[in-house]
Amino acid sequence: MTTARSQETPTAMIDRVASLLQSFDGHPRLTLAQISRLANLPRSSAHRILQRLVDLGWVERDGFQYGLGLRMFELGSQVVRRDRAHQAALPFLHALHRSTGLTAHLSVLVSADVLHLERIGTRAETELAWCPGGRQSAVHSAAGRALLAQLDESAWPELTFPAAASSHGIRGLPQLRRDLDQVRERGGVAVDTQWCTAGITAVATAIGPAEAELGAAVSLSGPAGTMPVEKAVAAVRMAAMDIWYAASGVTRLRGRGPRPIILPPAVAAHG
Amino acid sequence: MTTARSQETPTAMIDRVASLLQSFDGHPRLTLAQISRLANLPRSSAHRILQRLVDLGWVERDGFQYGLGLRMFELGSQVVRRDRAHQAALPFLHALHRSTGLTAHLSVLVSADVLHLERIGTRAETELAWCPGGRQSAVHSAAGRALLAQLDESAWPELTFPAAASSHGIRGLPQLRRDLDQVRERGGVAVDTQWCTAGITAVATAIGPAEAELGAAVSLSGPAGTMPVEKAVAAVRMAAMDIWYAASGVTRLRGRGPRPIILPPAVAAHG
Repeated sequence: MTTARSQETPTAMIDRVASLLQSFDGHPRLTLAQISRLANLPRSSAHRILQRLVDLGWVERDGFQYGLGLRMFELGSQVVRRDRAHQAALPFLHALHRSTGLTAHLSVLVSADVLHLERIGTRAETELAWCPGGRQSAVHSAAGRALLAQLDESAWPELTFPAAASSHGIRGLPQLRRDLDQVRERGGVAVDTQWCTAGITAVATAIGPAEAELGAAVSLSGPAGTMPVEKAVAAVRMAAMDIWYAASGVTRLRGRGPRPIILPPAVAAHG
Repeated sequence: MTTARSQETPTAMIDRVASLLQSFDGHPRLTLAQISRLANLPRSSAHRILQRLVDLGWVERDGFQYGLGLRMFELGSQVVRRDRAHQAALPFLHALHRSTGLTAHLSVLVSADVLHLERIGTRAETELAWCPGGRQSAVHSAAGRALLAQLDESAWPELTFPAAASSHGIRGLPQLRRDLDQVRERGGVAVDTQWCTAGITAVATAIGPAEAELGAAVSLSGPAGTMPVEKAVAAVRMAAMDIWYAASGVTRLRGRGPRPIILPPAVAAHG
């Protein structure tokens, strides 16, 4: 058994470890002084915790700087690998990218953001926010609005309305409601016209109905100037349906298992 | 300041949190009883820590089962995103996959294993061990032996010799030494002929010289029956050189920056 003494403050200690690890969020390399400040921990306490985390491989030390360690990457990778939507989506994301030449993402809502679980292909979306593990504002991102449009407003997370990358974007709740009406009219397809990143257009739709509780969206993005929007819309809608069938194990009328995605020739030729 | 009492056992508490999180390694979903046993923690203590980790998003609860949470994925993703070798390698891994149709990996040595940081493409390598965040035995994997061949034996991690997937594979130190001599004779190229996974052949080479301390290898893998080994060897060698130039920022004789990979027509035709 653990001692009574060590049981008295487990929550405080867990919080200290968590806030220390979270201080690296957006800061790949930090000094002890920076960690102490960001995690709001006394320097001596931060140093003791860091030393132990370095021993365990959770944190790496490089001279006077610290960063998250490979153990963190290894464990974190298992989170998406066991995700039902991710497992079902992976072959279809590859097919989407291969046939369109555009970048395919699988994303989920996390509080006021979308979090990208997977990205296949990369052409122009080089910003960290578009990488797996990256976040974007839910109200600006196509994936975010595709997921919000499926939910009753009472089920929404608390949303924020940061400035968009371009001069447009969603500036408040009334505008969001109007946009989501359009998303629903388009059968669940949301469009991001350079709101997340200047020069990048994205289209997205949710995978399966809200009741399925997969909570994931599939999207395609590409350079705003040349993105074949209508064809990308058709491709993500078909992929979302294929992924949903694969994830739910529902028998399709035309036979068992997902059928290969057949894109209109013009989309395939774009790849 | 933290209280004197809470400072008395920080190491023990960090270790408890770490061993609890690590109990999910290879076990996507666990019950409280399983976690308590795997992490060697009293049930009450495991339950208290879990509750707090659920609050923080590090662990997710689904009925009576627990799994690692998205916060873990999000932080873990940042580890490879800030990695110098990974940043430099990404466009070249995509190019390798595009031009050969084979699966490209970026991998590092972690104790007796290779850990895959990135995978582009997936054809036959569907096992979890080949995924980003997956591990394979260093002595059987092509990437592992390509990295070991660069190091003085005194710098090797402690190696293990598990059974290979096929009837061959490396069975002990004398055989490993003979194999690494061959790797060095081939200019640093290691080959895995179905030792990690039956039906999968892989070729790998280290990126840059050992002194560069990038510690990463690039590899190509594909179905054993149809893998164009010699052409894959030429492609990984060229990619390793391109990535090394990109990562080191060295000016190339023929001009600044990495040049595009030009594959022999036969390899390109295979894609």
